Amino acid sequence: MLRVTVWNENLHEKEMPEVAKIYPQGIHGAVAQAVGALDGVVTRTATMDMPEHGLTQEVLDQTDVLFWWAHCGHGQVSDEVAERVAQNVLNGMGLVVLHSAHKSKPFLKLVGTSGSLKWREIGEKERIWTVDPSHPIAQGLDEHFELPHEEMYGEPFGIPQPDELVFLSWFAGGEVFRSGCCFRRGMGRIFYFRPGHETFPTYYDPNVIRVLQNAARWAAPLKRVDGFPCPQVEPLEQV
Amino acid sequence: MLRVTVWNENLHEKEMPEVAKIYPQGIHGAVAQAVGALDGVVTRTATMDMPEHGLTQEVLDQTDVLFWWAHCGHGQVSDEVAERVAQNVLNGMGLVVLHSAHKSKPFLKLVGTSGSLKWREIGEKERIWTVDPSHPIAQGLDEHFELPHEEMYGEPFGIPQPDELVFLSWFAGGEVFRSGCCFRRGMGRIFYFRPGHETFPTYYDPNVIRVLQNAARWAAPLKRVDGFPCPQVEPLEQV
Amino acid sequence: MLRVTVWNENLHEKEMPEVAKIYPQGIHGAVAQAVGALDGVVTRTATMDMPEHGLTQEVLDQTDVLFWWAHCGHGQVSDEVAERVAQNVLNGMGLVVLHSAHKSKPFLKLVGTSGSLKWREIGEKERIWTVDPSHPIAQGLDEHFELPHEEMYGEPFGIPQPDELVFLSWFAGGEVFRSGCCFRRGMGRIFYFRPGHETFPTYYDPNVIRVLQNAARWAAPLKRVDGFPCPQVEPLEQV
Amino acid sequence: MLRVTVWNENLHEKEMPEVAKIYPQGIHGAVAQAVGALDGVVTRTATMDMPEHGLTQEVLDQTDVLFWWAHCGHGQVSDEVAERVAQNVLNGMGLVVLHSAHKSKPFLKLVGTSGSLKWREIGEKERIWTVDPSHPIAQGLDEHFELPHEEMYGEPFGIPQPDELVFLSWFAGGEVFRSGCCFRRGMGRIFYFRPGHETFPTYYDPNVIRVLQNAARWAAPLKRVDGFPCPQVEPLEQV
Repeated sequence: MLRVTVWNENLHEKEMPEVAKIYPQGIHGAVAQAVGALDGVVTRTATMDMPEHGLTQEVLDQTDVLFWWAHCGHGQVSDEVAERVAQNVLNGMGLVVLHSAHKSKPFLKLVGTSGSLKWREIGEKERIWTVDPSHPIAQGLDEHFELPHEEMYGEPFGIPQPDELVFLSWFAGGEVFRSGCCFRRGMGRIFYFRPGHETFPTYYDPNVIRVLQNAARWAAPLKRVDGFPCPQVEPLEQV
Repeated sequence: MLRVTVWNENLHEKEMPEVAKIYPQGIHGAVAQAVGALDGVVTRTATMDMPEHGLTQEVLDQTDVLFWWAHCGHGQVSDEVAERVAQNVLNGMGLVVLHSAHKSKPFLKLVGTSGSLKWREIGEKERIWTVDPSHPIAQGLDEHFELPHEEMYGEPFGIPQPDELVFLSWFAGGEVFRSGCCFRRGMGRIFYFRPGHETFPTYYDPNVIRVLQNAARWAAPLKRVDGFPCPQVEPLEQV
Repeated sequence: MLRVTVWNENLHEKEMPEVAKIYPQGIHGAVAQAVGALDGVVTRTATMDMPEHGLTQEVLDQTDVLFWWAHCGHGQVSDEVAERVAQNVLNGMGLVVLHSAHKSKPFLKLVGTSGSLKWREIGEKERIWTVDPSHPIAQGLDEHFELPHEEMYGEPFGIPQPDELVFLSWFAGGEVFRSGCCFRRGMGRIFYFRPGHETFPTYYDPNVIRVLQNAARWAAPLKRVDGFPCPQVEPLEQV
Repeated sequence: MLRVTVWNENLHEKEMPEVAKIYPQGIHGAVAQAVGALDGVVTRTATMDMPEHGLTQEVLDQTDVLFWWAHCGHGQVSDEVAERVAQNVLNGMGLVVLHSAHKSKPFLKLVGTSGSLKWREIGEKERIWTVDPSHPIAQGLDEHFELPHEEMYGEPFGIPQPDELVFLSWFAGGEVFRSGCCFRRGMGRIFYFRPGHETFPTYYDPNVIRVLQNAARWAAPLKRVDGFPCPQVEPLEQV
């Protein structure tokens, strides 16, 4: 059984009627439904307005993979919760970072860079190409798929070189982007996936759903540990 | 002093008048002129129709960085010369692999994969984005530059994950490509650079020239060795 | 069901009584028994003295993961079979390269480097450390395990930087070695694992057996393809 | 001209006479002397007890490469200065992280992991092997060199996979360690170098000095930028 928690700042849904219309259960609801359609996956959701943003240590201990969507509320996430999430990733919990969460506190803590990028919000066409067809996250996809209307994100993207690069995006307006990036940190696995602007029904797209499902399985921990200590050790040899 | 040898199969120039018109000194001539404009660089050229394709061991021993352009003549390159080039790269010589040389024998020997890709030859617009602005090969370039007419190469590109990814291309027709890829193999450095179809004056473009010059300096060996032996060694410790 | 083929040059077993005594069914027999103890795995073996070295296209088509042990017979492997193996890896077959197969033709074709290293054959102690405890191939192992007597292999090891580094070896005589190295090439996965000198009962060691089993599962293909063509494609956009 | 600043918490030197005896000018003094012996390098030092730990924005703006030695005072470094250092690295300043600074705030911010490791302080022999003899930081060194007495650091080391792995350490007591690790982050380059326990005269060792000098040159910025903004951009194409 794979236990997935989908976290969302859940701000646009409350403030922008057009977002609420597209995602009546919230973006977290749509993502949870997508991933939860997989056999053997159980999902729960958590949002920023819950106590401790819904991410108590107990919840994280029961989470194999955490999905994170956020945009304008990065600064409202408490440092304590952000640190707790990052530590849990280092201890083995998977993390799937969605769209504008490229600037979220947990992601930036884990990659150490700026997360900066270019953007343009005119709803242009995005075409997502698989550069590593052997990768588990690319399984079941064609060589490329299209999203008719998305926000554009452009390079240079302020990330370390990904451990594995899975997808590249082409945008009608002339930009490219590393849209599917794997990072291994500590015992945990992190996948950044670009699409998912709040004003488009991206998380209902069958190909996007497939990526979310593949990512949940890929990021699932083999085992969880209680942190890496720095132990003083006895010599193993006669020195 | 940096000693650069530019190799070209030199077939299109002899068979296609429109290529000869663009490159009256051959593609090798244009590339040599571009790189040779750097202070401290001396260039020579070599072509397939020379004895040993112009790449005797003596020539390679006097070459710090070898540029390689080829397209329809890959199969005409002798296995012996291809192996000689690959060995010299492992021993420290730099190699800059241009455009359709993605299927050349030396490159495939060194990366071990297929080199396969998609292509389309309608002279569409290519926009080349820098994804690693800190990289030596990207110095002096803007965030992106354009080539108004180029052949398209599309992903998936059959290469190992590059050690360093410098450029991505956007094509008007809807594809993306890893256009600037660094590989470190043995004591040598390899840079693959995508642009340079024979029917377009790509190697006269100031940005492309800058890339060629940067690549020559980046790929230059720190030192050359006479191969890696497999020595039997005495124990260094009392075991 | 995971279909594993274990290939062995099978020369030492016939020529050196002490090897035959340790491995009465051959090294291939011991490795096949180790991996075959996994639920869902079926094994077969193949040796150099068979027609086409036992590796016809039909056999490879029915092989998910190929294990390869070889030492003094690298030169006797036909180029045709070596090329066939390498192509099958690019098309998705897993390859586990054991010990002195660091100089085997298929491995060198796929990594493109020399495979060179240092060696010493005095049967010293080897201690194998896990540097990536999150890696699937490290599951079930302690932080380190020991082999009381092994041949030493020392750095520098002539390989490209591994895509994932799993194990490092410490040798009593004073050397270190990258003993567990993952490479992704085309659709296939390659794992190099150092231990396994023919005069020691290494492949009966419980920790080594665990690594072999883990490696078989890790290298198993998600899917197989019939090669990467270089297709000419229509423009996807109105250019 | 390469401007190097050597930072040291400078605590052991004041509290432990045996350290003060080895490093009468402080560890920072010895490192500055080592790097400053290079032609074209100018050095300054900074210590924790200075205002803003000696690392004002003005000092960092005039620093091409910052060396960082610290051990028991990590927690005394202000978050503001740690963040300032990390930001300057992302903007292009080089950072050389020495020995026990594996747990320093700037390093952990930039790599995002725990920095954990094993340790033992009995003054055993360390042998440092070059695994990438082609690397600029390895130039001028033999295949290995020895430090007769050092603190042991052992794997697993809680770092992301290095972008380039240069050195591995062998310890007499039975451990191995990734002792020379390169990371590229933003516009900056980071080199972690293991040796340098305060009770041994490690920074007077000629091979160690050579590494420090090579690292200073390798980490030097090609250019500095004023941060990566996240710009909204106009479409480059008619969409």
